[in-house]
Amino acid sequence: MQTDIGKKAAGEKAAEYIKPGMTVGLGTGSTAYYTILRIGELVRSGLDIKAVATSAQSEQLAIEQQIPLVDFEQVEKIDIDIDGADEADAQLQLIKGGGGALLREKIIAAASKEMLVVIDEKKLVKHLGKFPLPVEVTTFGWELTFKQLAALGAHPVLRLKDNNRFVTDNGNYILDCHYQKIHNAAALHAQLNNIPGVVENGLFLHYATRLIIGNADGSIREITHPYQAKTSF
Amino acid sequence: MQTDIGKKAAGEKAAEYIKPGMTVGLGTGSTAYYTILRIGELVRSGLDIKAVATSAQSEQLAIEQQIPLVDFEQVEKIDIDIDGADEADAQLQLIKGGGGALLREKIIAAASKEMLVVIDEKKLVKHLGKFPLPVEVTTFGWELTFKQLAALGAHPVLRLKDNNRFVTDNGNYILDCHYQKIHNAAALHAQLNNIPGVVENGLFLHYATRLIIGNADGSIREITHPYQAKTSF
Repeated sequence: MQTDIGKKAAGEKAAEYIKPGMTVGLGTGSTAYYTILRIGELVRSGLDIKAVATSAQSEQLAIEQQIPLVDFEQVEKIDIDIDGADEADAQLQLIKGGGGALLREKIIAAASKEMLVVIDEKKLVKHLGKFPLPVEVTTFGWELTFKQLAALGAHPVLRLKDNNRFVTDNGNYILDCHYQKIHNAAALHAQLNNIPGVVENGLFLHYATRLIIGNADGSIREITHPYQAKTSF
Repeated sequence: MQTDIGKKAAGEKAAEYIKPGMTVGLGTGSTAYYTILRIGELVRSGLDIKAVATSAQSEQLAIEQQIPLVDFEQVEKIDIDIDGADEADAQLQLIKGGGGALLREKIIAAASKEMLVVIDEKKLVKHLGKFPLPVEVTTFGWELTFKQLAALGAHPVLRLKDNNRFVTDNGNYILDCHYQKIHNAAALHAQLNNIPGVVENGLFLHYATRLIIGNADGSIREITHPYQAKTSF
């Protein structure tokens, strides 16, 4: 993999927030990749942590890096989750799921006390929605769910992979919804999750506690959320 | 099966609302069973309808009854859905999912212009919640979802079948939540569906348009909702 300076800077920075004894959520993607590599170095230097992985891909990388993994039945709580995003805004709202792992990533984010989001500067946007919002749906009756979404203006497109329907780790389909600009993310989140057949959607609204943005020159900017999340427009 | 007079009366009554040319959703359970038998009689006498089934069980019964079934890709809309419930109140709010088919039943209810609910009088309650609310959850990280529900006062119990974990038609688990008395069903519905890992819950709040209640003496009572606000495509 060719080193991306911004992604590497953000990914490695996040590892500084990990303290001995923590249980850590390991994210998926090209920026969280650098976090996992850095955690591996720290573990091999003696840092005592446990980890859970959000995907088969990050699990495999953790094993290679000798990061100790635990099963969910052994996990009382997750102290810190470090993951990437497809889009993030300055209110720490995210779109995730471009890689198709949104459900597992969200379950772990929801179970974590803190969520650090590592991105390069190109992922920081003023308004969410240019990146198509992934919506995970059950395969049963997905045509009906598709129509419900279309009627609500979602412009859904069934995700394909190699000309076949893309299937998530959970056995579901993904409908990528082309909103272009999401005006009220909280309302949209509730609307989507209230549609039977929708398992989860890629909006992560109240999870991120710190955004770590890597610039192309290797510098870092961080945004934390000092005030209540914006929920009305 | 021994004939239950109340269930039979309610189930058969519902079939009177079916008109030629309709697409009909076929529910699951001991009361919808009588509806399907009656529809079968009508079809064999010349009634021209199409049907979709909410479960393998009702699909099999429909085939035996020579009711023509269609696939979801051929369905533009469902005109009328007829299904049972584990509990119903006079506001036409329901708890469903005792049999584990809540997700498929809800997808079809949501896609239907009308939903008739057939129950015997014992299912009509003043307050929902004595019947444990089924919550369908993904198997990945279900322990975390369980803890989230427990922290919210749901008193969840993992559903078992023959000493193994019960698995739904969609490959998920069911957590039966013992609220005893649900005070604000709409708020609870939104809260549950916003938990990552929760696929769907057994509250059906804005779907039923008519409740058909069969009494033990064979008489019928019907409740309709004058302010029904329902989205359909």
